[in-house]
Amino acid sequence: MLFRLLPVLHVLGLMLMFFSVTYLMPIAASLLADDGTWIDFVDAMAVSFCFGALMTVLTSRHKRELKPRDGFLLVTLAWVLMAAIATVPLLLVIDGLSFTDAFFETMSGLTTTGATVLTGLERLPPAVNLWRHELNWLGGMGIIVLAVAILPLLGVGGMQLYRAETPGPMKDSKLTPRIAGTAKALWLVYAALTLACILSLKAAGMDWLDAVCHAFSALSLGGFSTYDASVGQFDSPLIEAVLIVFMVLAALNFATHFLAFRERSLAAYARDAEARAVAVLLASSILICAVYLAGQGTYPDFSSSLRHVAFNLVSIATDCGYASQDFDKWPIFVPMWMLFLSCVTVSSGSTGGGIKMVRALILAQQAQLELKRLIHPSLVTVIRVGRMAIPPGVSGAVLGFIFLYVFTVIELSFFLMASGLDYISAFTAIIACINNMGPGLNVVGPAQNYQALTDFQTWVCSAAMLIGRLEVLSVFVLFTPSFWRR
Amino acid sequence: MLFRLLPVLHVLGLMLMFFSVTYLMPIAASLLADDGTWIDFVDAMAVSFCFGALMTVLTSRHKRELKPRDGFLLVTLAWVLMAAIATVPLLLVIDGLSFTDAFFETMSGLTTTGATVLTGLERLPPAVNLWRHELNWLGGMGIIVLAVAILPLLGVGGMQLYRAETPGPMKDSKLTPRIAGTAKALWLVYAALTLACILSLKAAGMDWLDAVCHAFSALSLGGFSTYDASVGQFDSPLIEAVLIVFMVLAALNFATHFLAFRERSLAAYARDAEARAVAVLLASSILICAVYLAGQGTYPDFSSSLRHVAFNLVSIATDCGYASQDFDKWPIFVPMWMLFLSCVTVSSGSTGGGIKMVRALILAQQAQLELKRLIHPSLVTVIRVGRMAIPPGVSGAVLGFIFLYVFTVIELSFFLMASGLDYISAFTAIIACINNMGPGLNVVGPAQNYQALTDFQTWVCSAAMLIGRLEVLSVFVLFTPSFWRR
Ligand SMILES: [K+]
Ligand SMILES: [K+]
Repeated sequence: MLFRLLPVLHVLGLMLMFFSVTYLMPIAASLLADDGTWIDFVDAMAVSFCFGALMTVLTSRHKRELKPRDGFLLVTLAWVLMAAIATVPLLLVIDGLSFTDAFFETMSGLTTTGATVLTGLERLPPAVNLWRHELNWLGGMGIIVLAVAILPLLGVGGMQLYRAETPGPMKDSKLTPRIAGTAKALWLVYAALTLACILSLKAAGMDWLDAVCHAFSALSLGGFSTYDASVGQFDSPLIEAVLIVFMVLAALNFATHFLAFRERSLAAYARDAEARAVAVLLASSILICAVYLAGQGTYPDFSSSLRHVAFNLVSIATDCGYASQDFDKWPIFVPMWMLFLSCVTVSSGSTGGGIKMVRALILAQQAQLELKRLIHPSLVTVIRVGRMAIPPGVSGAVLGFIFLYVFTVIELSFFLMASGLDYISAFTAIIACINNMGPGLNVVGPAQNYQALTDFQTWVCSAAMLIGRLEVLSVFVLFTPSFWRR
Repeated sequence: MLFRLLPVLHVLGLMLMFFSVTYLMPIAASLLADDGTWIDFVDAMAVSFCFGALMTVLTSRHKRELKPRDGFLLVTLAWVLMAAIATVPLLLVIDGLSFTDAFFETMSGLTTTGATVLTGLERLPPAVNLWRHELNWLGGMGIIVLAVAILPLLGVGGMQLYRAETPGPMKDSKLTPRIAGTAKALWLVYAALTLACILSLKAAGMDWLDAVCHAFSALSLGGFSTYDASVGQFDSPLIEAVLIVFMVLAALNFATHFLAFRERSLAAYARDAEARAVAVLLASSILICAVYLAGQGTYPDFSSSLRHVAFNLVSIATDCGYASQDFDKWPIFVPMWMLFLSCVTVSSGSTGGGIKMVRALILAQQAQLELKRLIHPSLVTVIRVGRMAIPPGVSGAVLGFIFLYVFTVIELSFFLMASGLDYISAFTAIIACINNMGPGLNVVGPAQNYQALTDFQTWVCSAAMLIGRLEVLSVFVLFTPSFWRR
């Protein structure tokens, strides 16, 4: 067990030392805004650096090249450890905040869930708000690399389809150098889009702090906001339109963005079967729901119905999680449909969560094939997603993923119900957390937050975020005895 | 299209002629009870016989041996047509009953769903109540043959595992003779168990009519009752115990019963992996829920909590659908868990519905295999359910089934929500109907029935029953163009 754990802790120690650099941003913000919290962030920076240094030194005898199998432990512990260490400034600045709530907040940030237990966000010191949004953004950076470079290499539930995109031999290869190359290219795209978003939001009327914060939480699909009323605070169709564009971009595969950028052509998007399916599903859902709400009289006219459906539906479906209206008050058909979309309308290789479009496409293709096989039992055919032929083993991997995903949703929902939460709150909270989406309905609805939950319920939700972020299998595999064998 | 349709209609015509014989039972009951409805049943008998004879004669030029592919059309039309013709006596006897409601009632009977749109059941003429329960029982007969002999032959979503049990070559073989042999053996078991149940219920204190009716609806897992209060009417632990035994027996594979009967030994049950899993899941769920309800103070002591949980949980989990308490008022954890169980805790080859235990076991095995593959990517292994090795194609078939099952649940729930039903009622109604279980929660809860639904909602629920009963794929395949090609 230690053979596997210690070399991973060595790398994590280094990671924490690097992580301490990220405190420079809130320190600068605090000094600029003169909100007096800079000293707390300096303390937090020191804690992170020293703790990381200690870990690195203590485990230095066990340093070795990491193998793919170590990757599962690395990513799971990375998210847990960083969330834990990132609680320090929140605990220092915010009076009366419990560790449970602080951990929920930072885990929510780093997994880009964006659910919050804090109220009065607009009264938080600017540095603290910036720090929360930076966690979204850093989480997003981690996820893009995780989704595009690490998970396919690890063969997680269908994602091995994308193995081809990371060149070179697979088996027992060294993890780090290849990932570093891919990461650099992807982060370039991510940073460029973030910059574009900041400038667009500023031009649309936000101040610089809000623009930076919301660009961070839009590109990462984190969905944190600097206001309790979320994007509803601005009541600006222009800001909503800008955010819709960047949320949809963030819900596409960043490898596709990179290809489009390298080829200086939009052809990469047209070739991307996931992107096409996401676009079609979003557009048709917006239209149907806007007509439905207008028909039900929720909004006086079609254009305001369209505006509010477009923003909130895209926000929930892409797993960003902003709200501009209390959609919990809409006829239940629409919010439930939005929650359903949040499971599928994001691409693999994006910062969104849930089942992902590629798995939904594989499932749908498999179902069609089975219907054909009922008529022609000896039919041998290959299922395809876009132009990509799906190797036979991938169906099994998707089946395994779906089973564990559904199993987790059911188990964790029942934990919440058994601890006293009503069914809709329990089920939607787990869906919102495991999809790294954010708001649920009822007790955890868009006009509420996760503050009403008990400590036990808060931990269950934190677990759901982590499990969802790491595509379920990467966490479950740590609980199999054979993982820990040499 | 007519090439496929007409020979099937010829067989269905014969079936309707045979079906008219089933009216003899309510006619006899009406004469015995002197409730005056015998003339309506004679009329209904004549309609069924004449309509069937007309169909047979008109299509006699198109008579041919049926092929496996015809089976899908045969079973779907058989359930629809029989439900339609069985509405005749209900429409004749019950004033003001609409065709929509009558069709729901007969479809609910023949699919052994047991949901009702009628109130004042205890005031219905005895012959009508017997007729409703006979529909349950006849539906059960059809389902056992369907599940053990027909669907495996047709290769429906994982059920082809059981193909081995029906001997002889598969491809293009003649459907009828083989099925007839299997059917006879199974019906023997079914009839023997029904007789045992009638006598046990009479001994436990029911009158003959109630004993026959409840034995019919217990063995078929239909769940119709002669009282609005269902089995709660009797308030008898003994009757509940008898029904628990027969419900559990009915939830096992009737092929296993037949083997045990032929071998004069219980070893067949021990060999049956599904039976073991059903038993373990039921027993542990009863214990956990009884402790939970006692702890929550729903019942004053553990023994009454155990009694009520045991009966209602077994009833819902086995898809029978009786209620002895208004479990909708229990803390939501328990009824939701019961609804979840209703998807999985019945064996294939039983009269229960839903996903079935064998598919759940295949899914769980596949998920375990995928976790192992993350650690040893080149691992080649066979998944097993009990001693049965699962051929590779079956995983894909299960994946296809699950996708279409979940797709149907989601789509139909959204139809109900869009037409104004609340989320819990909509979702639980569809689960209750597609699993052929019976009561849902809220508007369609155990203390209510399906009368509150609009006509549109009633038809959606009728469709869910049919789709669930025919294991989803058998219905969906009719909507593929290639089905209708030569
Ligand atoms: K989010
Ligand atoms: K039933």
